[in-house]
Amino acid sequence: MSDELDDDFGEESVDIRAIAEHVVALARAGEFEAIGDTYWDEEVISFEPGEGPMAVCDGIDAVRAKSEWWSGAHEIHSGTAEGPWVNGDQFTVRFTMDVTNKDSGERFKMDEIALYTIEDGRIIEERFFY
Amino acid sequence: MSDELDDDFGEESVDIRAIAEHVVALARAGEFEAIGDTYWDEEVISFEPGEGPMAVCDGIDAVRAKSEWWSGAHEIHSGTAEGPWVNGDQFTVRFTMDVTNKDSGERFKMDEIALYTIEDGRIIEERFFY
Repeated sequence: MSDELDDDFGEESVDIRAIAEHVVALARAGEFEAIGDTYWDEEVISFEPGEGPMAVCDGIDAVRAKSEWWSGAHEIHSGTAEGPWVNGDQFTVRFTMDVTNKDSGERFKMDEIALYTIEDGRIIEERFFY
Repeated sequence: MSDELDDDFGEESVDIRAIAEHVVALARAGEFEAIGDTYWDEEVISFEPGEGPMAVCDGIDAVRAKSEWWSGAHEIHSGTAEGPWVNGDQFTVRFTMDVTNKDSGERFKMDEIALYTIEDGRIIEERFFY
């Protein structure tokens, strides 16, 4: 599928549900990096709740830096990805994870909804809800 | 809570998570009408996936008409409401329902994510993902 998406096709010909299902499949396989590598647009913008320094990451470099920081700071024991749920050029995925913060040693469960917006086959916005 | 929300307070002073949790509590109690009666803004706009006649309902009268049509056309056997998940002035809820379409007799399970946007304590947009 990623090869197909390298083509420059218009919004209307992109099958949002196929992209959404691929994202869920990658997450279930633990291949979170591949989601970004395959689908992040250069201009992707990512929103986390709250006011922290990573609440808004604008552009693929900033979003990748956040992702790499998070991956480095946490050990993932297990996780699930449910969905996708689709509407127009957007879809949502529910992620749960059992993780340990490597610095604090704290182990906790995450349960979040991710809302992705697609344009020309790429994620141009991701927004996380806790 | 609904009394408090009758006051005209600004966006910053509205506790989105409290509204979100109230919406989930009302849904769990089966009081779906009360969600709209309490929280729909006069200018609420509601988006369903697809191209049907009710894909976009603009204004509280249109949204209420959709809701009343749906309630009249379906028998709800059971349901769940999970969440809320919050980010800024938006929150999401996951609804599942076991329903029968009264016209066709078809019984089916629904599983959807609702994305609500709040302004001044009211739902100004709702967007459903299937």
